[in-house]
Amino acid sequence: MPYPLDPNKMYRMPTHFGPRAGPRQGPDGRKFECIDNPLGTAYSVSFLTNAQQLQAFLPPGFSLDGEPVVTVFTNHMTEIEWLAGRGYNVLGVSFPVQFNGEQDQVRGSFLTVLWENLTDPIITGREEIGFSKIYCELPPPTHLRGEYHLIASWLGFKFLDIHLSDLRELSLEEIQTRQASATSDGTLHYKYMPRTGKWGSADVAYPVLTPAANSNQRILEQHVGAGSIKFHPARWEDLPTQYNIVNAFADLEIVEFRGASLTKTVGGKDLSDQRILR
Amino acid sequence: MPYPLDPNKMYRMPTHFGPRAGPRQGPDGRKFECIDNPLGTAYSVSFLTNAQQLQAFLPPGFSLDGEPVVTVFTNHMTEIEWLAGRGYNVLGVSFPVQFNGEQDQVRGSFLTVLWENLTDPIITGREEIGFSKIYCELPPPTHLRGEYHLIASWLGFKFLDIHLSDLRELSLEEIQTRQASATSDGTLHYKYMPRTGKWGSADVAYPVLTPAANSNQRILEQHVGAGSIKFHPARWEDLPTQYNIVNAFADLEIVEFRGASLTKTVGGKDLSDQRILR
Amino acid sequence: MPYPLDPNKMYRMPTHFGPRAGPRQGPDGRKFECIDNPLGTAYSVSFLTNAQQLQAFLPPGFSLDGEPVVTVFTNHMTEIEWLAGRGYNVLGVSFPVQFNGEQDQVRGSFLTVLWENLTDPIITGREEIGFSKIYCELPPPTHLRGEYHLIASWLGFKFLDIHLSDLRELSLEEIQTRQASATSDGTLHYKYMPRTGKWGSADVAYPVLTPAANSNQRILEQHVGAGSIKFHPARWEDLPTQYNIVNAFADLEIVEFRGASLTKTVGGKDLSDQRILR
Amino acid sequence: MPYPLDPNKMYRMPTHFGPRAGPRQGPDGRKFECIDNPLGTAYSVSFLTNAQQLQAFLPPGFSLDGEPVVTVFTNHMTEIEWLAGRGYNVLGVSFPVQFNGEQDQVRGSFLTVLWENLTDPIITGREEIGFSKIYCELPPPTHLRGEYHLIASWLGFKFLDIHLSDLRELSLEEIQTRQASATSDGTLHYKYMPRTGKWGSADVAYPVLTPAANSNQRILEQHVGAGSIKFHPARWEDLPTQYNIVNAFADLEIVEFRGASLTKTVGGKDLSDQRILR
Repeated sequence: MPYPLDPNKMYRMPTHFGPRAGPRQGPDGRKFECIDNPLGTAYSVSFLTNAQQLQAFLPPGFSLDGEPVVTVFTNHMTEIEWLAGRGYNVLGVSFPVQFNGEQDQVRGSFLTVLWENLTDPIITGREEIGFSKIYCELPPPTHLRGEYHLIASWLGFKFLDIHLSDLRELSLEEIQTRQASATSDGTLHYKYMPRTGKWGSADVAYPVLTPAANSNQRILEQHVGAGSIKFHPARWEDLPTQYNIVNAFADLEIVEFRGASLTKTVGGKDLSDQRILR
Repeated sequence: MPYPLDPNKMYRMPTHFGPRAGPRQGPDGRKFECIDNPLGTAYSVSFLTNAQQLQAFLPPGFSLDGEPVVTVFTNHMTEIEWLAGRGYNVLGVSFPVQFNGEQDQVRGSFLTVLWENLTDPIITGREEIGFSKIYCELPPPTHLRGEYHLIASWLGFKFLDIHLSDLRELSLEEIQTRQASATSDGTLHYKYMPRTGKWGSADVAYPVLTPAANSNQRILEQHVGAGSIKFHPARWEDLPTQYNIVNAFADLEIVEFRGASLTKTVGGKDLSDQRILR
Repeated sequence: MPYPLDPNKMYRMPTHFGPRAGPRQGPDGRKFECIDNPLGTAYSVSFLTNAQQLQAFLPPGFSLDGEPVVTVFTNHMTEIEWLAGRGYNVLGVSFPVQFNGEQDQVRGSFLTVLWENLTDPIITGREEIGFSKIYCELPPPTHLRGEYHLIASWLGFKFLDIHLSDLRELSLEEIQTRQASATSDGTLHYKYMPRTGKWGSADVAYPVLTPAANSNQRILEQHVGAGSIKFHPARWEDLPTQYNIVNAFADLEIVEFRGASLTKTVGGKDLSDQRILR
Repeated sequence: MPYPLDPNKMYRMPTHFGPRAGPRQGPDGRKFECIDNPLGTAYSVSFLTNAQQLQAFLPPGFSLDGEPVVTVFTNHMTEIEWLAGRGYNVLGVSFPVQFNGEQDQVRGSFLTVLWENLTDPIITGREEIGFSKIYCELPPPTHLRGEYHLIASWLGFKFLDIHLSDLRELSLEEIQTRQASATSDGTLHYKYMPRTGKWGSADVAYPVLTPAANSNQRILEQHVGAGSIKFHPARWEDLPTQYNIVNAFADLEIVEFRGASLTKTVGGKDLSDQRILR
C-alpha cells in the first residue's frame, strides 16, 4: 500500500514523507507573500566584454541582446520567511539576451550561474525553477573607509574578489528613473536534468523564464559608484566540480568596467510564476 | 550559434560551460577507479520498529521484505578522488524492501534519505543517480572512554543523537561470514524531479537501483556492539525544509535496538551502474 | 642579539615578530577613532533573580547594587575598523554592582562573561583589558513575523535560547530620556592570569573598569518589548570547558522577566581608557 | 561575601563560577592520563634558512643552536579526553635554540607560534603554559595520488600551502633510531601578558619550557619523503591581527627543503610539567 502523491502539493526528493516545504509551499500548504521580507543587500559590478566569448555560453534559442555587458552581483538576504526567518547569500553572473522560441520571444537577463551558500535553496532552485545554482562560501562583505570587498570561495579556494568604492546615494527620483527605464521581460535560465543510467542524455532540458512582473520587492536605498571584479583561475585540484565555470569567467576579456551599485531592498516574490519557454 | 551538448559527456546545470566533472566523469572525461580511495569510517545502529509505520514510506512497487528493521548509519569519507582528495560525511536511514516491477524484481535496502554535509555530492547524487540527498551538519564523532557519539544538525538545530558502545573487533573470518550471508541486490531509491510551472506534477519519477555488485570496497576492520539513536522532534520553525522527515523518524516505534557496528573501509565504485527499475 | 620590546608599542604573544595590531593599535601604531564604525545591532533581555545566587559570583571588593536584575545581551557588529572592516558577535551576562577598593569606589555593570564568535578579539580582550571572554557560536538571529530568536552553542551543543517580541520603536525623546537616567560609572571585570607551573596561583588578579565615558557610540534606533531567555543545563561531556558557567546561569531563579530591547548603534571607543581598580 | 579562590584548583577567566576544567584539570579535579588518547596525525616539512633572519626572532636569553633549520608542522588530533573526545588541529613553526639563563641552560625547539582552529585550547595554552597560540582555519588535508596538501587561512585568506609527496614508511627500527638520536630538552616558549592600562608594559614576561620527558606519546607509524611550504604575503587588510607574523615567515629565505614526514601517534601528556626558565 504505497503512498500516493497529492497532485495539489509540491514534492522534492525524498517524496516518502509527504509534501516538502520550500519557497513556494509552507507548512499546511500556505504561500509566502514576500511583502515585508526578505531583506536584501545587493552588490553589483558590471563590465563590458567581447560578444564572441559570451556567445559560447548561449543555450539553444538564445542570442545576445545589445552590448555584451556582464553583471556580477551578490545578494545578502535575511528574514526569509520560507526559511522561518533565516538568511543566505547568493552570487550570480548574468548578461542580456533574447530568446526566440516557437511560441515565446522574450528579452531579459541570462543568469548563467548562481552560487549560494546554503544547500536547501540550491535544491529547490535547481529542481523546481531551473536556476543553475551551485554552492560556494560567501562571507559577509568587509567595509573599510568607504570601500566594500566581497569574496567567494569553495572549501578554502578563493575564486573571486569584488571591490566597490566611491559610492554615492541616489535620490528617490533617480531610483525611479532607473527602474522606469528597465525593459526586461525577466530572467532566463536553462533547466537540465540528466537521465539516470543513460549517461549523456537528459530527463529534462528546457529554457525557463522568471517573469519581471509580480514582485513585491521595493528598493529602500541605492548607491552607485565604481567597482571591479577578478576571477582567479583554478585547477581541477582546486575546484574539482566548478573549475571550468570559474575559468570561463576568468578568461573573459574585461574591456572596461561599467560601474557598481549597492542596493537595499525589502520584499520579493515566491517565483511561482516561473514558466517554461517554448 | 549556441553551444551543442556532447552526447558522450555528462552535464549538470549550468550546462553553458561544458561537461561538468563529478563522481563519474573527471577532467578530460577520465573515470575514477575507486580502488585505493575513498577511505571510510562507517557507524551504524539498527532497531526493530513496526511494519505499519514503514509501509507508509513505500513508493509505488515497493513492499517490505522481512523484519521491519531500520538502520541509521553514517559514513565519514576522506581522500575521495573525484573531489581531488577531499572528504565529506553522510547520514542515511534505510530498511529492507522488495521492488516488483514489470521487468524488475529486486530485493535490497531502501535508502529513504541521505543527509550529506557538502552540496556538490548532494547535487550529483540527486540529479544523476536519484539518491534522496539533503543537507545537514555532520561533525566528526566524539570518542570518549569507549563510547562514540555522533550528532546531526541543521543550522544549529540538533535533530539526531547516535551512541555506540561495547564494541569488539571482528576477526577476518567473522567479517567474511557476515559478508557471505548478505543477499541484497543493492540499494533502492525513488528519483523525482518536479516540473517547472506545473506545480504538483513531475518531470521525472522512477525507481532506481544501486546494484550491490561491481564495488572495489574492502573492509579493513569491523567492530560490533551496542548502540542507540534518538531523533528529536522539530517544529517548522526549527527545520523549515526538513521537519516532516525528522518527525517521521522521531515517531517511529523503537521495539528494540538490534546492535551497532563501526566499519573501516577502502575503495568503492563510481555508481555508474546505477539503473532505472521498470 | 635578541629582539628588544619597544616600550611605546603594544605586544601580545607571539612577541617575536614585532608589535601586534589590535583594537588599540593599528598598522604603524595608528589609533582607531570608532566614530563611523562599528555598526552594532544589540538584543537584550533582563530578568529579576534572587540576590543570594548573584552574590556567589562576586569577586573581592564587589557587592550587589540595587535590585538583582540580570541582563543577557548580544551585539552583532560589522564594519569594525581594527579588523579591517570585518565583524563578529558577542553574548554577555551582567548585573549591577558596586566596587569598594582602597582608592576606587565605582558603581556599574559587572560583566561576568562575554562569549564571542571570533578568537582574535577574545585574546586581545582577555589579555589587554581583562574581559572574561570565551568562545561560542553565535549565528545571526532569525526574525519571523515580529519575533526574534537568538541561540548560542559550542561545537553543536545549544546552551541558550533568547526570544524577543512585541517590540515598539522608541522616539528620539524616549531614547534620550533613557540615556540621561543611566548613572553607571562603567563596566566592571576581574582580570586573572594563572602562573605557569605553580598551578592554583596567579600571575595577575585585579579588578578592572571600562569607564562609561569617552565613547563615540550613538544610538540610531531603539525598540523595546518583551523577551525571555533559557539557558540549557550541560554535562561536562557537552561543554567540557564551560559547563559550570552555563549551569550557573541555568540555575538562576527567574522571578520575572523585565523586558527586552533591540538597539542599533554606530561608533564606540577603542577601550584604551580601561584601567585597574585599586 | 565574595567567592574565594581555592589554591588547590586551577582558574581562568571568568573565575566567578568556580575552577575551570581544561587540559590539566577535569571535572572534580581529575587528571587526564593521555595514554590511549589523543590520536594524532602530524605532517611536517623542514627547510634550511639563513641564521641572521632567525636571530631577529629570539627573545632574551635565546640563541640559535646548530643549523638554522625551520620546521613547519601540523597535527590533526582526535579523541582528546579533556575535550570529552573531540579534536582540533594545530600548525606550528619552530627551529632549534639554546636558552642560557641564570639557573637554566636548555637546548630544544623554539615554538615561535602555534595556530589552532579552536579557541578553548588557545586560551588555556596561552594563559596556563605560555604557548604563543593564535587562531586560523585548518581544514583536513587533501590526499590525491600520493600527494598531501594542507592549507591554513584566516577568515578566508589563505596564508600557507604545504605539500608532501614521495612518502615511504619507516620500519620500526628506523623509527626507534630516529627517536634515540633526538637530544632536545624540550620545547621553548616566551610567555607575555600585557598590563591593563599601562600600555606597552607587561604583567608577565618569562621564558617557559615544555620538558621533552614524561610523555605517553607513542608513534604508530611514520613516513618520510619530500615536502615544500609556501607562506603567502599579507596586507593588514588581509590579516589585520597576524599580517606581520605571516610576512616574517614569507620573507624567510628558503636555502633548501630538508624533507617531510607524516607521523601517526597515540597518547601524550597534560603538560602540567611546564615550567618557567630562569
